[in-house]
Amino acid sequence: MKYFFLSGSLRKDSLNTKLLHMAAQHLNCPNSDIANLNDLSIPLYSGDIEAVGIPDNVQKLAKCIDQAQALIIATPEYNYSISGVLKNVIDWVSRVRPMPLKQKPILLMAVSPSQISGIRGLWQTRIPLEGLGNYVYPEMFSLGGSFQAFDDKGFVNPDDQKRFATTLDGFGKFSQALVRK
Amino acid sequence: MKYFFLSGSLRKDSLNTKLLHMAAQHLNCPNSDIANLNDLSIPLYSGDIEAVGIPDNVQKLAKCIDQAQALIIATPEYNYSISGVLKNVIDWVSRVRPMPLKQKPILLMAVSPSQISGIRGLWQTRIPLEGLGNYVYPEMFSLGGSFQAFDDKGFVNPDDQKRFATTLDGFGKFSQALVRK
Amino acid sequence: MKYFFLSGSLRKDSLNTKLLHMAAQHLNCPNSDIANLNDLSIPLYSGDIEAVGIPDNVQKLAKCIDQAQALIIATPEYNYSISGVLKNVIDWVSRVRPMPLKQKPILLMAVSPSQISGIRGLWQTRIPLEGLGNYVYPEMFSLGGSFQAFDDKGFVNPDDQKRFATTLDGFGKFSQALVRK
Amino acid sequence: MKYFFLSGSLRKDSLNTKLLHMAAQHLNCPNSDIANLNDLSIPLYSGDIEAVGIPDNVQKLAKCIDQAQALIIATPEYNYSISGVLKNVIDWVSRVRPMPLKQKPILLMAVSPSQISGIRGLWQTRIPLEGLGNYVYPEMFSLGGSFQAFDDKGFVNPDDQKRFATTLDGFGKFSQALVRK
Repeated sequence: MKYFFLSGSLRKDSLNTKLLHMAAQHLNCPNSDIANLNDLSIPLYSGDIEAVGIPDNVQKLAKCIDQAQALIIATPEYNYSISGVLKNVIDWVSRVRPMPLKQKPILLMAVSPSQISGIRGLWQTRIPLEGLGNYVYPEMFSLGGSFQAFDDKGFVNPDDQKRFATTLDGFGKFSQALVRK
Repeated sequence: MKYFFLSGSLRKDSLNTKLLHMAAQHLNCPNSDIANLNDLSIPLYSGDIEAVGIPDNVQKLAKCIDQAQALIIATPEYNYSISGVLKNVIDWVSRVRPMPLKQKPILLMAVSPSQISGIRGLWQTRIPLEGLGNYVYPEMFSLGGSFQAFDDKGFVNPDDQKRFATTLDGFGKFSQALVRK
Repeated sequence: MKYFFLSGSLRKDSLNTKLLHMAAQHLNCPNSDIANLNDLSIPLYSGDIEAVGIPDNVQKLAKCIDQAQALIIATPEYNYSISGVLKNVIDWVSRVRPMPLKQKPILLMAVSPSQISGIRGLWQTRIPLEGLGNYVYPEMFSLGGSFQAFDDKGFVNPDDQKRFATTLDGFGKFSQALVRK
Repeated sequence: MKYFFLSGSLRKDSLNTKLLHMAAQHLNCPNSDIANLNDLSIPLYSGDIEAVGIPDNVQKLAKCIDQAQALIIATPEYNYSISGVLKNVIDWVSRVRPMPLKQKPILLMAVSPSQISGIRGLWQTRIPLEGLGNYVYPEMFSLGGSFQAFDDKGFVNPDDQKRFATTLDGFGKFSQALVRK
């Protein structure tokens, strides 16, 4: 399986981006399959920019998505809903033709400092992805209390590690089934 | 009543921005109360930028919102949900202290080329705004078939003009009631 | 202010119904303004029943809603979304003419055994109520860990009592402003 | 593939139920696999009823769902969201142990008299089903203008018939892939 990893946070030390690296390691994927949105410098979507030409970095990102068999997205929740940064990426990629963000198995994950939040943002993130025709895995991995949840070696709580592995493995089977379809 | 107007589109000839100008005219507001997001060049939200300092233009926009008694937002629907551009603005403004985007009466409007869409995006736009504690007017003005709906003098269909005026007037009473509270 | 109280649970010892009684007491309302859905025996909505005639008890409930100036609804979350029992009541009442469930200030509350849930159900409950044109208060009162949260004298934790009172008082001002409108 | 069909409408001449019969015919399924909620007389969910014992007809319905490999649900939209009747069925079935409504491929369909509505209700219907862990097909079949859309022989417009067949066939492949998993 060829996975591609996308973060909804631009922060250099983002715990959501860290979670993607942990997922890539678990799945034996190279770090090069993790999008670095900071380096890509994707602009805010504008129909005027699009009329001149979809930016090269959007095209580059769209190609990575197209070549992947499945996507794993980790994103913070901002204001009870989707990260504006992530939504902007989705809005741009949805304009590339042929549109690559469809019929992809997608796993959503969220790390957040509070105990409650994270999961509400993921529910809002399902909507554009499912609307575009992707297979968003029903189970979503969300982890609260983030500042205490990690240390240098990974999850502090073995139960979190186990749940993380179970979710990734379940998603792997789901993706394989749909890719063979 | 002091209104402030915000568009979810960066396109220069955006019909949503045009709708805001029509609303400002109906309410006898100066065009200077319509945010020009292109001139403000607000970056994509990043915790790293925030750590250095919230950008001046975000502060400037936050001040305009703070000084307004009510907001009118017109926004396209992208991919069945909120415009990433608009969500990014909300995410930034929610980081300013004191946070200005609360207890504001807000009217949502959408113009879209298709007959169906527009309204679904507005429903997703309610969530961050209500989550932050704003009073989003239950009635929302959405107008499909946009390329045929306007000419130089405004709405082609008098029924659209009437519905537009009724919505704005109803929102005006709602806002006044809540501002006097 | 004349309030009417509606529970999304049919359980006799429902903590959500208990919360309504506590709210009625705080607001000095008689218990008779709390709907007893068990006694009303409202059927599942069917267009065939409606064609014969909207049931008397639906009419009775609709009249109570019509005569109230504001509504307070407490409801469990079932399966990440609205209680089917509550949705069925809304579906029936929306068929009565003149339709009483519009332009009403509404406060939503939820008690739940888990720490996380409750609030997700309330977000889904906003949709039909706002779609019908009601003014749903942005702040919602949700209380997790319900089995430990109450005793015979009310909230165990004084912070919960304080938050409850603040929410009800804020909603009172919101309602009064909109009723005077 | 063994499908089970569920309608969100209790109306005898429901067009949503009619759509299920058309789907069953297309997929060569017997009509006995279409739930008749009127005959089942499932009560409104109450924890008090559950404490005495989950009703036999809920158990019977749960068994049908358990034995099916995939579900097809057609439901009206009521008040911009899920049908209370359908939500009540989901709430009951989610209480049966072992809980059968998980990891099922599910197709959602809606017929509605208006041009716009139907699809908004389906989006709200996804939430409890996905929350319970089911694989809801991203594409949803919604058909507006229902009173003109059917005659005795089926769809009036061949394009609707084609879209219906394409959706069902796509869902069939999706289901087969996930069942083999």
